Amino acid sequence: MNEAALRIGLDVGGTKIAGIAVDGAGITRAEVRIPTGWGSDAVIRGILTAVTGLRHDLGHGSGGIRSIGIGVPGLVDADGGRVLHAVNLGVESLQIARIVAEATGVRCFVENDVKAAALGAAALRRVTEPMAYLNLGTGVAAGLVIDGRIWRGARGTAGEVGHLVVDPDGRECGCGQRGCIESLCGGGALARAWGRESALPVKDILDAADAGDALAGRLREDLFRGAAAAVRALVLTADVETVIIGGGLTALAERIEPGIRRALRDDAGASPFLQSLRLDERIEILPAASPVAALGAALLGTAAVSATAQEEEIIVHG
Amino acid sequence: MNEAALRIGLDVGGTKIAGIAVDGAGITRAEVRIPTGWGSDAVIRGILTAVTGLRHDLGHGSGGIRSIGIGVPGLVDADGGRVLHAVNLGVESLQIARIVAEATGVRCFVENDVKAAALGAAALRRVTEPMAYLNLGTGVAAGLVIDGRIWRGARGTAGEVGHLVVDPDGRECGCGQRGCIESLCGGGALARAWGRESALPVKDILDAADAGDALAGRLREDLFRGAAAAVRALVLTADVETVIIGGGLTALAERIEPGIRRALRDDAGASPFLQSLRLDERIEILPAASPVAALGAALLGTAAVSATAQEEEIIVHG
Repeated sequence: MNEAALRIGLDVGGTKIAGIAVDGAGITRAEVRIPTGWGSDAVIRGILTAVTGLRHDLGHGSGGIRSIGIGVPGLVDADGGRVLHAVNLGVESLQIARIVAEATGVRCFVENDVKAAALGAAALRRVTEPMAYLNLGTGVAAGLVIDGRIWRGARGTAGEVGHLVVDPDGRECGCGQRGCIESLCGGGALARAWGRESALPVKDILDAADAGDALAGRLREDLFRGAAAAVRALVLTADVETVIIGGGLTALAERIEPGIRRALRDDAGASPFLQSLRLDERIEILPAASPVAALGAALLGTAAVSATAQEEEIIVHG
Repeated sequence: MNEAALRIGLDVGGTKIAGIAVDGAGITRAEVRIPTGWGSDAVIRGILTAVTGLRHDLGHGSGGIRSIGIGVPGLVDADGGRVLHAVNLGVESLQIARIVAEATGVRCFVENDVKAAALGAAALRRVTEPMAYLNLGTGVAAGLVIDGRIWRGARGTAGEVGHLVVDPDGRECGCGQRGCIESLCGGGALARAWGRESALPVKDILDAADAGDALAGRLREDLFRGAAAAVRALVLTADVETVIIGGGLTALAERIEPGIRRALRDDAGASPFLQSLRLDERIEILPAASPVAALGAALLGTAAVSATAQEEEIIVHG
């Protein structure tokens, strides 16, 4: 194993940091999971602890880490390596890339966590066509990967389909609008509409819907039609070939996948144009807890998903 | 003037063919406009008549036409130079590029007319950032231009925002759905909802709304909020920097532009996120009858909008 081919990827979430080290062939060589602290200092300490843990697990081969990639929830200035408004981390503005690079001696890249996950999902599922990763979690957002690269758009808001309004009479969303996609299928919005204390509100909603509860049945339908609307927005606007669905709600993948597929079929029912797109065949739900954000973070800074393997091969054989 | 730098572009519409010849500097050297016939044979005859007319106007310099680009309403297999399901032309399937190339001895490119217009709008307005062209005509569709090239997507449906549903209780659309964007702001849908005989139904609706007619007022509001929804879908999904609005409704540009801007501002009113995007400042309406589809067709087959001038310069100075 060539040491220099190792890349570290960290998914810095509101509750935990999940880290992996992958080699040039994309094989995971080490994994770590630690709680996330609150505020800039604690976040940096957590990142450095995770890196140290991974290096320790890698043993004597850990000297030549090629890069550290970090996915964070928030607005990211990828070129400047800075994160802004990461409210779940208690971070207002932080030069993560510079600080981590100085502390570790390894070059560092930062990206929004959903965009990093999109890159990881494309690599994990070996998708080479234009694709979108739709994150169904507390919130709803997507990332686009085109030609093996994250498509950030003109201002970094590409994939923000969660805040497209699809029902003017819908529920209020935290974003200030009514009836946007996130208000229908975001875990946070569903929990608020359900209104009962629960550690696993979406699971409870599905259970109650199965038991015949009318409110739960309507919320389950909102979940399905909201996700279907997100898929349509992604395909009809950017024309991605595939939409890979990930995020916290995939813990319930086998209970929600058939419903999203049915909603896509039902909504296309009267429209030959939509039927011709076969949207229900173009989605895929990741297995629960797929580490796509950490994997994608590890791939940050490589020219492209497909180019990575080549680049590494040159190093391995050189 | 170098003869070989001339390119012909034809916008083949349901009623007329508009053709131009541009030189390497993008200057229009000749123009032609003839009625479109019905069916494959008549469409080809019209195209060849337009080319002959342009060549005649160009005089002795017409021998070295570099390319002929053709924009057509319908599904286009750009690589194969074929158009499919061009219902407005009475064409089911036609190998336009091969037939026109054989008849003229000039290489020929074919593209969907809205996608060609997007390329033309980017060139006309000298937009180098990711942009969308939103065509408000009888129907509603958009084209994306990224890095100076038409973004066709995985299956050629990129930009089909007209059939995204934004109001489940809305009017039926010809596409089979209810409340899609085209049902709100398409000229055909507005004319059907207005229901009165008129040669210029959208103008009549605006006049009647100004005079206090309630139905006309609601339809005018639908026009504004539908166009605003299309702009949001394009920016929040693909994150284009600019949306340039063209198409038949731009004949009323000075009467609809303020309303679309207001709808974008109003809809963002309660949302700090949407306000931060300043969507009302990111749209632009083309002057009526801007020949963007013919211009874009003339640019088909060039590497990119920005590369065209360079390529031509080499020829001019070579």
